[in-house]
Amino acid sequence: MARLATRLTERLGIAHPILSAPMALAGGGALAAAVTRAGGLGLIGGGYGDAGWIAQEFAAAGNTQVGCGFITWSMARKPELLTQALAHKPAALMLSFGDPRPFSAEIAAAGVPLICQCQTLAHVRQAIEAGAAIIVAQGSEAGGHGASRATLPFVPEVADLIARESPDTLLVAAGGIADGRGLAAALMLGADGVLAGTRFWASREAMVHERHHAAAIAATGDQTVRSSLPDIARQLDWPKPFDIRVSANAFIANWAGRDAVLKDAIATEGPAYREAFMAGDPDKAAVIFGEAAGLITDIPSAGEIVERMVAEAAALLGGAQRFLA
Amino acid sequence: MARLATRLTERLGIAHPILSAPMALAGGGALAAAVTRAGGLGLIGGGYGDAGWIAQEFAAAGNTQVGCGFITWSMARKPELLTQALAHKPAALMLSFGDPRPFSAEIAAAGVPLICQCQTLAHVRQAIEAGAAIIVAQGSEAGGHGASRATLPFVPEVADLIARESPDTLLVAAGGIADGRGLAAALMLGADGVLAGTRFWASREAMVHERHHAAAIAATGDQTVRSSLPDIARQLDWPKPFDIRVSANAFIANWAGRDAVLKDAIATEGPAYREAFMAGDPDKAAVIFGEAAGLITDIPSAGEIVERMVAEAAALLGGAQRFLA
Ligand SMILES: Cc1cc2nc3c(=O)[nH]c(=O)nc-3n(C[C@H](O)[C@H](O)[C@H](O)COP(=O)(O)O)c2cc1C
Ligand SMILES: Cc1cc2nc3c(=O)[nH]c(=O)nc-3n(C[C@H](O)[C@H](O)[C@H](O)COP(=O)(O)O)c2cc1C
Repeated sequence: MARLATRLTERLGIAHPILSAPMALAGGGALAAAVTRAGGLGLIGGGYGDAGWIAQEFAAAGNTQVGCGFITWSMARKPELLTQALAHKPAALMLSFGDPRPFSAEIAAAGVPLICQCQTLAHVRQAIEAGAAIIVAQGSEAGGHGASRATLPFVPEVADLIARESPDTLLVAAGGIADGRGLAAALMLGADGVLAGTRFWASREAMVHERHHAAAIAATGDQTVRSSLPDIARQLDWPKPFDIRVSANAFIANWAGRDAVLKDAIATEGPAYREAFMAGDPDKAAVIFGEAAGLITDIPSAGEIVERMVAEAAALLGGAQRFLA
Repeated sequence: MARLATRLTERLGIAHPILSAPMALAGGGALAAAVTRAGGLGLIGGGYGDAGWIAQEFAAAGNTQVGCGFITWSMARKPELLTQALAHKPAALMLSFGDPRPFSAEIAAAGVPLICQCQTLAHVRQAIEAGAAIIVAQGSEAGGHGASRATLPFVPEVADLIARESPDTLLVAAGGIADGRGLAAALMLGADGVLAGTRFWASREAMVHERHHAAAIAATGDQTVRSSLPDIARQLDWPKPFDIRVSANAFIANWAGRDAVLKDAIATEGPAYREAFMAGDPDKAAVIFGEAAGLITDIPSAGEIVERMVAEAAALLGGAQRFLA
């Protein structure tokens, strides 16, 4: 199998410049370990923070080196979770959605590389101040939480900023990348690698209901939307500017423009939402995937996903000279 | 100078796979001709349709082969403008924002290649039915009107659809592309070329007020927003799902969430808006640019823009094998 080498593979000591996103609930130790074994780096989704779950998923990864990611504003309420995760000597610690600076000293002291996922240039500057080893520039086409910049123009703009202000910081592209075309494009844009969520969510190792997987296969990329409704239903206090990209399903259509009504009805709607989600109902609760769903037609193993992405990107990059007349 | 060859350069008989967008008001004959002379293909912005202006701009292009683009729903009210444009034997006729099918027979009879700009997969299917020679997949990061898909995942999804249903149709990427990185990325995503608006708007040949140019140079890509307010102020009846990406300036902040108030005050606000726009006021009326503004630091000639894009893309594509370990 071909190998793709970048500053990222060198810095992390991995074969391919591919990270799997630390997806709350969906991305556990099995997925992360499978991605690492295939030559990328898998990240456990620390999510909203449950000590037992994190311990269990590090255990599930076994002896395979994986990283871990937290939703920063949520972890900030239980910073002992960061200490717990660092005790597992993760290959990297990723922070997303909140100011990473209060946590950077502890992460540095543990000798663990810090990855910061950023949605604006102001976030990038915070990440540089926090001494991030790797910045993930995340576009709004991404599945899950995010903000408004689009991957294609955001990545080179972040690359220029990093080149000026912190040239040793590495850059990873996220949002809409699900195959070798997206990987090759990201490298042309100036990224050192990619982080993929939706594509690994649609893998056998992800903790995702099969009806949710079926919904993603059926969906085109036109059938997603950014919304705050799922967070209202889950009573999650997401700060601005973040909302979540999900399937444009009946739940979203039903409550569109009625945030306040949903809030008022939360005593009954909250439990109904949770129950529908746990049952894998693809209509009555959010299904979390991004525009990349339009590129997904199957649920392979995470290892096969890495292999396909690398093979396709290697063919494109290896053959790119054909465009030179 | 390097040349970049794709199916697009072959089909159109041009040196580089770069089209300039048919930008209403901003893109006239001088800009279009400059892009063509540099080896791309320039498109005159037929916009909302003024017969005198179109005649004048084709005259300004002189003997240089250029194309012309229309806002479909607007041109549909004055279809004689299409006949007029076709009489100039344009190198291509581009339709965007509306159903192209009613006009395809006339364009085909004139022997002019049809370019359709598409924002959804449904639009792509309409374009294929219309017999489009070239489909432009436009992402929401684009300056000017558009919809919600992002360029990076939209382009490969459209590529897959075209490969299945109409493999001889060519594909061009638009939205957020302003340099050789974006061009090289678009080719990796499966596009045969790119269409750039914001980058050519920020050129010496564009008909843009110098204060608007200064605003774009000062702006980062974080400082744009999609909105309907400029169209309300201009009393333009844009159909769904389209809105316009503009600078996130004082005009936008001032009226945010107050569409109805602006509509009610249109008798005074309409003329005030027009006056501010004509005066180049960067605060009191919209300045139309996309996220690519964050990649723009100067106002060169359109020819130099083409040269830079080609040189940078050629270097990236020519050197892409360095990623193969
Ligand atoms: C199901 C799902 C859950 C996610 N949960 C998290 C999370 O808990 N923390 C986080 O930093 N990012 C999370 N993300 C976002 C990813 O980090 C990443 O930015 C995104 O998936 C990239 O875009 P893509 O989905 O198009 O690959 C999640 C994404 C998905 C699809
Ligand atoms: C100032 C400006 C005016 C535009 N006017 C038109 C137009 O009249 N018709 C059209 O089809 N597209 C128009 N567009 C959109 C372009 O066709 C194109 O999709 C867009 O510029 C590509 O994204 P970019 O701005 O990031 O390059 C305009 C874009 C800009 C920036």
